Amino acid sequence: MSTTPDFKFFKLSNIAEYVVHVEINRADRLNTFTRAMWLELEAVYQRLSYDPDVRVVVMSGMGDRGFSAGLDVHEATTTGILREDAGLDPGRKANRIRRDVDELQRCVGAIERCEKPVICVLHGLSIGFALDIATSCDVRICTSDVTLAVKEVDIGLAADIGVLNRLPKIIGSSTWIKDICYSARNFGADEALREGLISLVAADKPAALELAFCMAKLWAAKSPVAVQGTKELLNHSRENSVTNSLRYTKVWNAAYVQSQDVGTAVMSSLRREKPVFSKL
Amino acid sequence: MSTTPDFKFFKLSNIAEYVVHVEINRADRLNTFTRAMWLELEAVYQRLSYDPDVRVVVMSGMGDRGFSAGLDVHEATTTGILREDAGLDPGRKANRIRRDVDELQRCVGAIERCEKPVICVLHGLSIGFALDIATSCDVRICTSDVTLAVKEVDIGLAADIGVLNRLPKIIGSSTWIKDICYSARNFGADEALREGLISLVAADKPAALELAFCMAKLWAAKSPVAVQGTKELLNHSRENSVTNSLRYTKVWNAAYVQSQDVGTAVMSSLRREKPVFSKL
Amino acid sequence: MSTTPDFKFFKLSNIAEYVVHVEINRADRLNTFTRAMWLELEAVYQRLSYDPDVRVVVMSGMGDRGFSAGLDVHEATTTGILREDAGLDPGRKANRIRRDVDELQRCVGAIERCEKPVICVLHGLSIGFALDIATSCDVRICTSDVTLAVKEVDIGLAADIGVLNRLPKIIGSSTWIKDICYSARNFGADEALREGLISLVAADKPAALELAFCMAKLWAAKSPVAVQGTKELLNHSRENSVTNSLRYTKVWNAAYVQSQDVGTAVMSSLRREKPVFSKL
Amino acid sequence: MSTTPDFKFFKLSNIAEYVVHVEINRADRLNTFTRAMWLELEAVYQRLSYDPDVRVVVMSGMGDRGFSAGLDVHEATTTGILREDAGLDPGRKANRIRRDVDELQRCVGAIERCEKPVICVLHGLSIGFALDIATSCDVRICTSDVTLAVKEVDIGLAADIGVLNRLPKIIGSSTWIKDICYSARNFGADEALREGLISLVAADKPAALELAFCMAKLWAAKSPVAVQGTKELLNHSRENSVTNSLRYTKVWNAAYVQSQDVGTAVMSSLRREKPVFSKL
Amino acid sequence: MSTTPDFKFFKLSNIAEYVVHVEINRADRLNTFTRAMWLELEAVYQRLSYDPDVRVVVMSGMGDRGFSAGLDVHEATTTGILREDAGLDPGRKANRIRRDVDELQRCVGAIERCEKPVICVLHGLSIGFALDIATSCDVRICTSDVTLAVKEVDIGLAADIGVLNRLPKIIGSSTWIKDICYSARNFGADEALREGLISLVAADKPAALELAFCMAKLWAAKSPVAVQGTKELLNHSRENSVTNSLRYTKVWNAAYVQSQDVGTAVMSSLRREKPVFSKL
Amino acid sequence: MSTTPDFKFFKLSNIAEYVVHVEINRADRLNTFTRAMWLELEAVYQRLSYDPDVRVVVMSGMGDRGFSAGLDVHEATTTGILREDAGLDPGRKANRIRRDVDELQRCVGAIERCEKPVICVLHGLSIGFALDIATSCDVRICTSDVTLAVKEVDIGLAADIGVLNRLPKIIGSSTWIKDICYSARNFGADEALREGLISLVAADKPAALELAFCMAKLWAAKSPVAVQGTKELLNHSRENSVTNSLRYTKVWNAAYVQSQDVGTAVMSSLRREKPVFSKL
Repeated sequence: MSTTPDFKFFKLSNIAEYVVHVEINRADRLNTFTRAMWLELEAVYQRLSYDPDVRVVVMSGMGDRGFSAGLDVHEATTTGILREDAGLDPGRKANRIRRDVDELQRCVGAIERCEKPVICVLHGLSIGFALDIATSCDVRICTSDVTLAVKEVDIGLAADIGVLNRLPKIIGSSTWIKDICYSARNFGADEALREGLISLVAADKPAALELAFCMAKLWAAKSPVAVQGTKELLNHSRENSVTNSLRYTKVWNAAYVQSQDVGTAVMSSLRREKPVFSKL
Repeated sequence: MSTTPDFKFFKLSNIAEYVVHVEINRADRLNTFTRAMWLELEAVYQRLSYDPDVRVVVMSGMGDRGFSAGLDVHEATTTGILREDAGLDPGRKANRIRRDVDELQRCVGAIERCEKPVICVLHGLSIGFALDIATSCDVRICTSDVTLAVKEVDIGLAADIGVLNRLPKIIGSSTWIKDICYSARNFGADEALREGLISLVAADKPAALELAFCMAKLWAAKSPVAVQGTKELLNHSRENSVTNSLRYTKVWNAAYVQSQDVGTAVMSSLRREKPVFSKL
Repeated sequence: MSTTPDFKFFKLSNIAEYVVHVEINRADRLNTFTRAMWLELEAVYQRLSYDPDVRVVVMSGMGDRGFSAGLDVHEATTTGILREDAGLDPGRKANRIRRDVDELQRCVGAIERCEKPVICVLHGLSIGFALDIATSCDVRICTSDVTLAVKEVDIGLAADIGVLNRLPKIIGSSTWIKDICYSARNFGADEALREGLISLVAADKPAALELAFCMAKLWAAKSPVAVQGTKELLNHSRENSVTNSLRYTKVWNAAYVQSQDVGTAVMSSLRREKPVFSKL
Repeated sequence: MSTTPDFKFFKLSNIAEYVVHVEINRADRLNTFTRAMWLELEAVYQRLSYDPDVRVVVMSGMGDRGFSAGLDVHEATTTGILREDAGLDPGRKANRIRRDVDELQRCVGAIERCEKPVICVLHGLSIGFALDIATSCDVRICTSDVTLAVKEVDIGLAADIGVLNRLPKIIGSSTWIKDICYSARNFGADEALREGLISLVAADKPAALELAFCMAKLWAAKSPVAVQGTKELLNHSRENSVTNSLRYTKVWNAAYVQSQDVGTAVMSSLRREKPVFSKL
Repeated sequence: MSTTPDFKFFKLSNIAEYVVHVEINRADRLNTFTRAMWLELEAVYQRLSYDPDVRVVVMSGMGDRGFSAGLDVHEATTTGILREDAGLDPGRKANRIRRDVDELQRCVGAIERCEKPVICVLHGLSIGFALDIATSCDVRICTSDVTLAVKEVDIGLAADIGVLNRLPKIIGSSTWIKDICYSARNFGADEALREGLISLVAADKPAALELAFCMAKLWAAKSPVAVQGTKELLNHSRENSVTNSLRYTKVWNAAYVQSQDVGTAVMSSLRREKPVFSKL
Repeated sequence: MSTTPDFKFFKLSNIAEYVVHVEINRADRLNTFTRAMWLELEAVYQRLSYDPDVRVVVMSGMGDRGFSAGLDVHEATTTGILREDAGLDPGRKANRIRRDVDELQRCVGAIERCEKPVICVLHGLSIGFALDIATSCDVRICTSDVTLAVKEVDIGLAADIGVLNRLPKIIGSSTWIKDICYSARNFGADEALREGLISLVAADKPAALELAFCMAKLWAAKSPVAVQGTKELLNHSRENSVTNSLRYTKVWNAAYVQSQDVGTAVMSSLRREKPVFSKL
């Protein structure tokens, strides 16, 4: 990154040229999320989205116990989204909840809106909000000991921060999605790999990060115009008919095919040199 | 259920608290469907949808030979949807057919519109209309001896009661969907499991039912507000963009997060007690 | 086919009644595509779409080295879509590019718009434009030695002729799609089969073609009204909500259920004869 | 109609061949709607939709004071949709309300789903639910003394039975829609005519009915295949892109152009005779 | 135009720099359309769409009697779309009709797809297919004596070539659309102007053409990048949500704002000179 | 408002209980917008959206000369969105422009996203960006001397900040929209009123503000739950099919019908008292 801001709940480090590692930094509380954290999460990804020194992001949780155990339930039930509002009638309380959910959706959605690809490395306990984050990333890698769960049913509510909305777009089997979402049961790496939620399983966290860094460095060496355009077009296609997304694609490339990167890539390929792309 | 109505073609039984077992009751004709049956099917699911004593439904076919061999072809070709209408010009005949298909789509769609999750247990012969039913359910379990087929091409028509419309939404591989739909070929449990159409395969029908009941009881013990909200939100997401489904989710939970179930679930969790949720 | 036109870049042959084999005929240049070729590709499929003597199409590439190595890069960078246009300002150049991409999208889309099912047989090198073609076909079969890649990122641009728009509709795992599209890496038959991109893997090209012909003959023996209706309805469902596609399906069958094929199919079935369907 | 059923809250009469007049029959209570009435409203239109002796429907309110003063507020606030449910938590109460609104939406939507065109004649007081009905009809005619209002804001809620959802589809000026919906103010015939909500204004109720009957008889003399197809296609177009609605239209007419009505209409035109179309 | 091709049924003339006048050239048959004509219509607009010497098109009908009396009914009922096909079963006949309608929709849609704005001048008899054409144009001007009608109901079918699909997108009042479409009645210039179907009414055809030419010359003097982009964006907005069309707009202008036209326009404005834009 | 922040470019004042007047405060430069201003515009509306002391907003421009002459062209062409970026290739420049347009769209969209209704009062010169603002408001009022224009074509580009995307949603006549957008011509109050862009015309600015304040006070006296729900539901309906918006409406009111406002409104109505609604 061009500058390293002091974020409080996330540790950012350059692990290679154009590759940033974002770590959730609250290991003593199993990386559970408070409001201050999801607001900072949004700030982190808004920054990375436009930073010309960043091309790929790897996200993981600090500590050995897990990526994240979800929202901080204590905060949620005392001063947060699940708090009592004794003085409000149900209509007004509904307005308060709707705004709170809106904030959470917007903050976790910053990962999806980030123009750069994001690789999520899941280890240990990775439940609830962890899956809202993971499904907003582009690629998911996990350790063999990971414990995953769409946990919201167990606190008496339907998940509302993104996992139910994105799962049907990112994996194929509806029968499996309903199984895990109705039961809130744990599932592991093998099952997640088989169902296509996860790309790769590594033996442990260092190995998983190694895989992620390796993948990130590969992508970071490519044209950023090409990679970031691919993210935008794949996300657009997911939401639109083929006809509409072809129309959008045409206009996208009417601009971006004019970048120097095409010439650079073709030339380097002919000369069997490693291409160098200018910043974006 | 609060009361047990006398349905003629479906046997309903309470196999556990809040869990109803619906059995297709025409085993002597391989559970083929007549018009009277699909009209009753709709009535069954409309009733279950609002019955506060029901939280999960398991559906299966009576008898050893199979879940269902599809529509009753004799009725269909004599007095039913495929009948001749000698006196009608093709435009008027089109109107008659369109209304007949509308009725069939609406009746089988009652399973999907039912607010409670439905587990489908497929055994033996399970073809044609059986798959229209199965793809309208939430989760599918089958026996190892099951014979599945999208059979309509073999009677000279494109399937029109739901299977072609729902398959692309509930499994991932388009190349496989087209293979089975163009050929009308049989496929078995292993293939269905591998492609994600089926969640689990059991040795035989009793074992499959046991798996389904076990799953149903697990879900039935959860907050009904949470489970039924999850069904609605997953079905909404399947049909809408992430942006639209997030907007719908926000409003949904503005109301439902206010239910007692959140407090009940959180408290029970802290006290390590089994939560008891009031009826819905 | 009723008549065999002289196409220059595609060899068409009747390999069985109602089954046409289309071969890309530029093996000496690894079946790379020039503009003349994609314009002819559209002409081929527009012809096959309405030809009553054709019910199923098998598409493959001539020669041993591969299905296709993509666009002819030399033409693309000198006189084609990636050419310099020194005299044009970026806005006018954008217009030129947009029209060029429109033509490419339209030509490859002719395969999808073709009313008859198309089986794609991929062998050897099958990258770039090869995948734009393959994802426009209905079913994909490959050899065990196939090399597949979404290659565009390596020439500095996001793919714009269809592959990014169709992949999310035809396979389930988004994490895998992003992996292959951001990295432009090669992947083989096993991976493509596991992820559901490919239906079947054969030992070599003759075996793969044999499988394809076998599948094609099976489909060609079915009612063309049924098979072609199934293609239209499955493609419609992929793009629309269940509610909308059920509505479309009703109207479709209001017309097509009136064809003789239903009677022919039912009668043949009762008499255990092979049905003969008139041309469509 | 083929038979005249005994409806309790609606008077049905044949005012001409193929034209039915439906009158709201609770003039002593200003035609306010109770639950029994909207359930019967649905039954009336479900019957008319398929009755081959009906081609056009005219709907009006009995008595001199008005078309309808909306829902019966006494019932609504005591046993109906706006009742207290002291024993329910807000989540369960939400479920109850959602089901109640669902029923109301479905019942008034029966007018829109009715295959035959419906002309609405508004006179005197026509507010609240009256506009939910009117906007579900095809054509609206009113008397010069009519008083119209989207009244729901004045009872503390956003209208939820259809008027807010249909107004943006049936008239052009958003600034006017918002003006009348936020203020709940009365507006009259001239304003409604100018904004395109109303087709015609007549001096009084007999004159308005005369205009409606005249229009209805004109339509009823046309081919029912043509008129009912036009209703379906216009309603489809309102909800879909031009591309999608053209696709639907093609399939619709693939069936319906085959009706005898085309030949009958063309022949009658050549012979300058009044065409006679068979029932639909 | 750069070159003037010899079209048979359409007369093309340059009435000013960058402005082409297209006249339907079959006045002796009241400009009724045969198949040869609509195929040529498509060819005309495909050519104009990309011709850099054309910026605005004015379309009118030759002769005094009218713009067009619609399809050539004699051809339609003998060898055309409404012909008998004695030998075909209704399913196969449906296929034939669907393809015929597809061709007509595609040909008239060429006007909408034409990148340049098209002004339609309607005079005298302008019914049936005339309105399919007119609603595909951008702006409509008429003479005071024009006779307009959506005529299809009078030949026993619902209009299927575009008018029903585009009317709800281009004018506001649904009650009026249904009135004219169910009745197939004639309406004149005043009514069409009041309902927003028509922009301007002129005393007679020369005056109407004068108005159209004046408008066309005004537009032709503007930046073609700006005007053609405006056509594309307005047409896109009509079909898409605000959110989606804003996203498309962003990408569109990412390319086109880079054209020289912005600089040219701003400079000319400062210098109070007439801007000269290069060809597009 | 609960507190009055010091905004620099907008003057906010409470003109009545719950009614805030927002004035664009750069009259010496004809209220043209710089980047600092549109960023502040977003901040203003984000604040008003959640402020419980605000129920309705009236927006106008300070000074006599007009509401706004659009973007500050000097800033735009030197350091702003239309600046040269000599060092950037067209692809990278496209990225820069896309982000700039994104910011402008997001800032002006804050008016539409504001939960409270906004009335726009247009006077004098109101062109370019003025119409992007005006079309994001709910209701538009103008003075008889207003000069309106969609001006972007005159600076060589298609409008990209919202006016082209919203016009087709908020007025009916497409032929008029295209006329004003292709020509960039001025139009006045009468034309805007006739086409439904404007609700009311007043003699001069004080009279127009008086009308707006009057309307605002009327709305502000209504239940805020009802009025703000109506804004949300009308905006949702504009973008969605009737089926989808009815579904959304059901869930919305499942929560909001439970507010005290229904009881308060009904009781006040019975007692003929002015209702007092608690803050929202």
